[in-house]
Amino acid sequence: MAKSAEDQEHPLKAFGFAATDSSGLLSPFHFSRRETGPEDVNVQILFCGVCHSDLHSVKNDWGFSRYPMVPGHEIVGIVTKVGNNVKKFKVGEHVGVGVIVGSCEKCESCEQDLENYCPEMVFTYNANDKDGSRTYGGYSDVIVVNQRFVLNIPDNLPLDATAPLLCAGITVYSPMKYYGMAVSGKHLGVCGLGGLGHVAVKFGKAFGLKVTVISSSPDKEDEALNRLGADGFLVSKDAAKMKGAMGTMDFILDTVSAVHSLLPLLGLLKLNGKLITVGLPNKPLELPVFPLVFGRKLVGGSDFGGLKETQEMLDFCGKHNITADIELIKMDYINTAMERLAKSDVRYRFVIDVANSLPACKI
Amino acid sequence: MAKSAEDQEHPLKAFGFAATDSSGLLSPFHFSRRETGPEDVNVQILFCGVCHSDLHSVKNDWGFSRYPMVPGHEIVGIVTKVGNNVKKFKVGEHVGVGVIVGSCEKCESCEQDLENYCPEMVFTYNANDKDGSRTYGGYSDVIVVNQRFVLNIPDNLPLDATAPLLCAGITVYSPMKYYGMAVSGKHLGVCGLGGLGHVAVKFGKAFGLKVTVISSSPDKEDEALNRLGADGFLVSKDAAKMKGAMGTMDFILDTVSAVHSLLPLLGLLKLNGKLITVGLPNKPLELPVFPLVFGRKLVGGSDFGGLKETQEMLDFCGKHNITADIELIKMDYINTAMERLAKSDVRYRFVIDVANSLPACKI
Repeated sequence: MAKSAEDQEHPLKAFGFAATDSSGLLSPFHFSRRETGPEDVNVQILFCGVCHSDLHSVKNDWGFSRYPMVPGHEIVGIVTKVGNNVKKFKVGEHVGVGVIVGSCEKCESCEQDLENYCPEMVFTYNANDKDGSRTYGGYSDVIVVNQRFVLNIPDNLPLDATAPLLCAGITVYSPMKYYGMAVSGKHLGVCGLGGLGHVAVKFGKAFGLKVTVISSSPDKEDEALNRLGADGFLVSKDAAKMKGAMGTMDFILDTVSAVHSLLPLLGLLKLNGKLITVGLPNKPLELPVFPLVFGRKLVGGSDFGGLKETQEMLDFCGKHNITADIELIKMDYINTAMERLAKSDVRYRFVIDVANSLPACKI
Repeated sequence: MAKSAEDQEHPLKAFGFAATDSSGLLSPFHFSRRETGPEDVNVQILFCGVCHSDLHSVKNDWGFSRYPMVPGHEIVGIVTKVGNNVKKFKVGEHVGVGVIVGSCEKCESCEQDLENYCPEMVFTYNANDKDGSRTYGGYSDVIVVNQRFVLNIPDNLPLDATAPLLCAGITVYSPMKYYGMAVSGKHLGVCGLGGLGHVAVKFGKAFGLKVTVISSSPDKEDEALNRLGADGFLVSKDAAKMKGAMGTMDFILDTVSAVHSLLPLLGLLKLNGKLITVGLPNKPLELPVFPLVFGRKLVGGSDFGGLKETQEMLDFCGKHNITADIELIKMDYINTAMERLAKSDVRYRFVIDVANSLPACKI
């Protein structure tokens, strides 16, 4: 019997770590990648960030996971082969691959370089690719990607700490640009100091903003102020300090995915203030309408970014020497890393040293 | 014993209708207005609109009502006297007074002509004026107002149908301007076809927008389309039609004050769509975050408007012959009108024919 499109065997052998059920445990997995098409770039994966959505996905928290699943969408690697029509990339160059590896390329969103909002976008893993086969992510040795979805890495950036920019970085950079936050002298609150929040602090400072971190963890104050360069730190449970800071912020970037109260955050905003959420709480939040009306405030959302803007973000990072703060791990540490990630026990992003540790796991 | 500032007797005798407790019943009431100061304009009140917030206020729905209360903040009248420093207005001219009669005039909001967001703004009724006395609104024969808070009425507009523009009109005009809706060819949804919604439809058409009314009342379809000039009509409970309209609107102006679901409205919006609420539900609404993130949508608020923009709105109405659709009533009908308003039994705004019916109620 012929294999279905999903299970078809491709010519390029690949090896990675996959979850096989909603326990989310990852284990060695052999699979295959498609032949290099004329528009394709083959990337030997060097590093891959461990995004919080990898954890949600392997555990099927959102209900649309399919197994086996190779997670990973914060990929940095080296070009090993290019298709005939590929002019932008050369063998040996360092490149990145982020959250998506395909889109329709012709809808209104794609025409505005907003492939991230294309209804037919193809996620880097846990999705069906255009040829019907399943996509597998960056916890693996090699990936084949259409050139539109491949990014240049600025030469001066360390490759391991750059990987998280491909998702965490663009997810906070894009709303800062779209909602007009990149205005020197304004006051930005960053709610939640994790993988996304700590990069948002760095972008905020690079844009010339005054940045205040709002966190439930008092023990993050020192590093927020002294290592990340934030100008202020608010413990969200400190009612007196939160009250004292009311009406002082122009924008808040809310990176918290847990269900939480918007009322105190809206209170921190000035007239015309903007509260932008990039987290994905699995239940609706309570929206108090009075502060929106009486302060002409808004609550908006944003979802990673298009490829053009992702390249712009990487170039901006190159110019300002911005990368993520990471803990580099070996591939066989991934299940422990996932457990620690579930407890937010990481500062601030695990990155897998794929090329140096995956081959040893081969079975 | 000297009277307190609140109860002080002013030199100008005034007569109106006041609520005396949270039953909200209005009855004849004698009171006084201050002497004409150098910046003041005396206005003989001709017409006053009956705003839904008058109903909330007389019944103490928001918890900060004080009695006796003379409601009314959609006032149109004729200038009878001006202070020494008043150059903008002359005796005999038609003028309007809206939601506020004072502000600090020096804060950041006031300096940006956003007196409506000044922390010290003085509401036209149910507030303490700068001299400490209580403010009384437009269900009365005369009012004395600082010239900054008095508006010119374009000569071509009928005075009775203009009165509701002072609150209902500016409350929908201001967000349309601030949130960038006044862009010809875009698609606006107007949710709720009442005092605010029906004016929003007229503004939308004047701005060159495609306008679709979203209403829970199927019986409003004919007049929405054929009298108000809307391009489309959606019954919010018609799941099939609501689904068919998903992703078609650029903006929605939500005028509904009752607690309601935002999810179907967010679904009607395109990528980057804006849902702007001007209603004031007394409980928080449920905010589903996924559509905000995946569609880069926002939920914003807005609260009436500053004086400069209110004048701009009135001039725009003069140019486009826009007024409210009203039911003109006599003063002694007000308690029945309030009962009908509570049942939304009005198309679309009651306006009290003050000058022609209040004197007969004198006791």
